[in-house]
Amino acid sequence: MGLTDFSHRLCPVARSMAVLGERWAILVLREAFYGTTRFDEFQRNLGIAPNILSARLRALVEHEVLERVPGPGARHEYRLTAKGRDFFPAYVALKRWADCWMTGPEGPPVVLQEAATGREVVAPPLLGGDGRELGPEAVRALPGPGASDAMRARLARQEADHA
Amino acid sequence: MGLTDFSHRLCPVARSMAVLGERWAILVLREAFYGTTRFDEFQRNLGIAPNILSARLRALVEHEVLERVPGPGARHEYRLTAKGRDFFPAYVALKRWADCWMTGPEGPPVVLQEAATGREVVAPPLLGGDGRELGPEAVRALPGPGASDAMRARLARQEADHA
Repeated sequence: MGLTDFSHRLCPVARSMAVLGERWAILVLREAFYGTTRFDEFQRNLGIAPNILSARLRALVEHEVLERVPGPGARHEYRLTAKGRDFFPAYVALKRWADCWMTGPEGPPVVLQEAATGREVVAPPLLGGDGRELGPEAVRALPGPGASDAMRARLARQEADHA
Repeated sequence: MGLTDFSHRLCPVARSMAVLGERWAILVLREAFYGTTRFDEFQRNLGIAPNILSARLRALVEHEVLERVPGPGARHEYRLTAKGRDFFPAYVALKRWADCWMTGPEGPPVVLQEAATGREVVAPPLLGGDGRELGPEAVRALPGPGASDAMRARLARQEADHA
């Protein structure tokens, strides 16, 4: 089985996290969400070694989360692509969890605010049809259009185990 | 600067991803959300080497995302903790993005359905005060109660740069 086959075996979430789960990648992306575009700004804000920053930016450009575009003068800028911008709701959902479970008693280091209204920006809850929060035990996983035979067998087994 | 200091320097999202961003960790967590509890079930469903599975389960137990509890017979089971269950909305938000941007033309391998109603479960959009989708450019990052001096300086610089 070739490398491509292996990558297709993994679920899309796992493939996403293989890129974005890397510690510096998510910090670079956070900076991009907060408006950073220039290499020297990323470097200063993150206190990161230039070679590590280069590698992270390159990976994010390769995965089309950022694009490298000509900036003022001889500089380049790193801009969020549509794919990168679209990660923002997932980032906010991760932040909610991390602020709740991964911070000390001092509370979250950063709060997000809607610029136009001053409202705090928090991830919306996941609700069921009855308007109550939906936990994993209330959800079934079913084969989607792109399910492999192995995934179909695996989900059928799950349904049988928990019937 | 000691190791603890370094871990506190990183934002909670980055610390979260240092655990959950690992490729197998997110697959193990996905299995737990879909109802898997036993070591042999995880192993069979994921096709993962036992030593790697042991290490991933141990890390998730250490980070209190899963707990190891006595099961039927001499077996143990891995159950989601409150912290683990609370990651579900973030998982669903990641899945939405990954299904949209990280799958081929065949579509997502798995769809989620609310068991009680049969409704498809999708992450709710992040909306602004005007009811429209809120992108990163419409959001300001401000120091929260747990902001370090460095973070305060960094966010002030950002505000000045983009004023």
